[in-house]
Amino acid sequence: MKIITAEQFALEKDNTRQQSEHDIDQAVLEIIKEVRKNGDDALRRYTEKFDGVNIDKLIVTEEEFSEAGELVTSEFSSALQQAKQNISEFHQAQKEQSWFLNKSGGIMLGQKVTALEKVGVYIPGGKAAYPSSVLMNVIPAKLAGVEKIAIATPPQSNGKINPNVLVAAKEAGADIVYKLGGAQAIAALAYGTESVGKVAKIVGPGNAFVARAKKWVFGDVAIDMIAGPSEICIVADETAPPAYIAADLLSQAEHDESASSICITTNRDLAEDIKAEIDKQTAGLERKDIIKKSLELNGRIIIAKNLMAAFDIVNKLAPEHLQLMIQSPTENIQFIKHAGAIFLGNYSPEPLGDYFAGPNHTLPTNGTAAFSSPLGVYDFVKKSSIISYSEAALQNASESIINLANTEGLTAHANSIQVRRGESNA
Amino acid sequence: MKIITAEQFALEKDNTRQQSEHDIDQAVLEIIKEVRKNGDDALRRYTEKFDGVNIDKLIVTEEEFSEAGELVTSEFSSALQQAKQNISEFHQAQKEQSWFLNKSGGIMLGQKVTALEKVGVYIPGGKAAYPSSVLMNVIPAKLAGVEKIAIATPPQSNGKINPNVLVAAKEAGADIVYKLGGAQAIAALAYGTESVGKVAKIVGPGNAFVARAKKWVFGDVAIDMIAGPSEICIVADETAPPAYIAADLLSQAEHDESASSICITTNRDLAEDIKAEIDKQTAGLERKDIIKKSLELNGRIIIAKNLMAAFDIVNKLAPEHLQLMIQSPTENIQFIKHAGAIFLGNYSPEPLGDYFAGPNHTLPTNGTAAFSSPLGVYDFVKKSSIISYSEAALQNASESIINLANTEGLTAHANSIQVRRGESNA
Repeated sequence: MKIITAEQFALEKDNTRQQSEHDIDQAVLEIIKEVRKNGDDALRRYTEKFDGVNIDKLIVTEEEFSEAGELVTSEFSSALQQAKQNISEFHQAQKEQSWFLNKSGGIMLGQKVTALEKVGVYIPGGKAAYPSSVLMNVIPAKLAGVEKIAIATPPQSNGKINPNVLVAAKEAGADIVYKLGGAQAIAALAYGTESVGKVAKIVGPGNAFVARAKKWVFGDVAIDMIAGPSEICIVADETAPPAYIAADLLSQAEHDESASSICITTNRDLAEDIKAEIDKQTAGLERKDIIKKSLELNGRIIIAKNLMAAFDIVNKLAPEHLQLMIQSPTENIQFIKHAGAIFLGNYSPEPLGDYFAGPNHTLPTNGTAAFSSPLGVYDFVKKSSIISYSEAALQNASESIINLANTEGLTAHANSIQVRRGESNA
Repeated sequence: MKIITAEQFALEKDNTRQQSEHDIDQAVLEIIKEVRKNGDDALRRYTEKFDGVNIDKLIVTEEEFSEAGELVTSEFSSALQQAKQNISEFHQAQKEQSWFLNKSGGIMLGQKVTALEKVGVYIPGGKAAYPSSVLMNVIPAKLAGVEKIAIATPPQSNGKINPNVLVAAKEAGADIVYKLGGAQAIAALAYGTESVGKVAKIVGPGNAFVARAKKWVFGDVAIDMIAGPSEICIVADETAPPAYIAADLLSQAEHDESASSICITTNRDLAEDIKAEIDKQTAGLERKDIIKKSLELNGRIIIAKNLMAAFDIVNKLAPEHLQLMIQSPTENIQFIKHAGAIFLGNYSPEPLGDYFAGPNHTLPTNGTAAFSSPLGVYDFVKKSSIISYSEAALQNASESIINLANTEGLTAHANSIQVRRGESNA
């Protein structure tokens, strides 16, 4: 783990975001074309090719759900239910109401909030399994009032879906689970096939193929975001225990080699202590090979001259996860402009948010927290404006509307007002 | 104007959305590459090529703003100010607050709302000029608290920007106006050049090149939506005056040949009357050539057997603009799932919303109202989650978090909780 200054870090960050995605795009576009053309046949062909398994029925059956229920431990079920309760409680607070306002003269304006009808949730699978992602993506959609929530997740080599994922899907309220992964799953959800219903929006994490496929279908359907590698940034002062900081950086680094684990501190002694703790703890961790590579590539401890300088770096990074392990974290929220989630104090480590506390773990990565939000109930609704004018109110406004329409050269727009004054120019 | 049945209409709509955008994409990608590489030089070169004018200074000067102020009429200024007041009042009601909730045992969760820092607004120009689009895009950004709002709009052949657009920019509170159009403007806003500051989000309407450029830079910056041709759908019963309906359909048709003007009615006599009114009014309208082509291609009067059947067609279309010119429009809002804006009654024609009433005229087109919202204050803010747990609260939650992390094979995540229990597995 390198310890560097803020100035050195600024130099390193230049131009790291440019990557060629040309090869992936070629493959992804071919897959999308094939799925649109050949439907389920193409899906089965790609599932055999990429997941190594021949799937006849693409939809998980009730029997498979029951079987999964038998296979999970009671400890897991209990933890899942507690997490579900916390996630539901937080997202409940995000729900928006339709509203209207009456103005004098017979004018009513409003905003109607309506749930999306059908949503697709992508959940990575194969060797790994992420029941937490199921909860985090399905629960807000359910609370928003989405009528049909479909999960797509790649099958294991035995043709089954991981039981923990299936139990989470049932618990969260998903309506259907497809045994589908990769770009072919995204294409199927976006355009529909014989077995897969077309959805209005696709959400959920995935590898580079899934991410690029989402970018390509965007516009035909809505998508949540193009997720990149996961990031943590910890701002720490001398009140933070180095063992905790090290453990949190390591938890991020275990995701994959491109995950980014950064600590910014005002205290050089603390930096040295963190470094020592990292070496000590890494040795005992299962995923130490990934962790070491990840830290070497994207792990940094940055020395900032004071807290304000640290926050300045944070706002430039716009990190996905930000931990404030400092004397008065809550008082300092005001200085944070860009971060997906902000964790306060020494007992709010990122895994608390990943699994349990309630706020969504689907967060903007790769600097996009500068313009994007965590996944939320607001991602599963959309708004319609409402305009109602009385005859008198329209007459009052008519001169201005006619002037503005004619100014833009749109005389038929003016005519629409003029006919209502009994003076069509047509 | 064709009168058809709901069944005939269903057949017509099949497969109309597929278009080859390959040629445009090639050109757009080349422009983006050039602007990223050669900055202002590339911008000047493209402005000469596409706008036919050699621009030295890409930024509108204070003198040019003053000059514009002298050139506009007092009627226009007054109409603009009234529109601004209505737009501000409606969008003010969209503002969201940060919130938090305290849970027992020392838990605080919250959602912080923060404005985007810099936003770019594209305004079409050249021969046409759209001051209304300036208000509709800049005012919500300003109300959201965006620090820097930049407009890009192509210069006229004399190298100037239309004075009405400049006055609207000043009135709405834009900070800077660039003389730039097309894909080169989008590239400059997305990546920055010597003269143009990089923004976090690009909004605003534009032609196919602008739309495709926005699609391509999406991910590196946020964008509002990929706007397609404009649409109106009017549901009318026998209480609606055919002259009004005809005028409103014509106002939509004058936009361009690909604009779509649809009326759905339960009354065949009304349909015939509307058709006659359309012929009568079209003859006197300035833009009658565009209107005739547009109506021929995409103008339809559809006979539905009852109102519920009409609403069913509406929800499948998900139109940008919906007018309910029926006996009890407000009572029937409940049946509308998908529409960008809903206009109620005989005195709420679309141009009222385009220019004046207050709700945004930037609306989801081409069926995307099924998953998208009108432009609003919510497009110029983003959220950060806040998580704060006490030591006791984390201890209480620790078993569940450790179980869920280990279930997903993320043992360093479990370790982050375990070190806080004094029992690291590392």
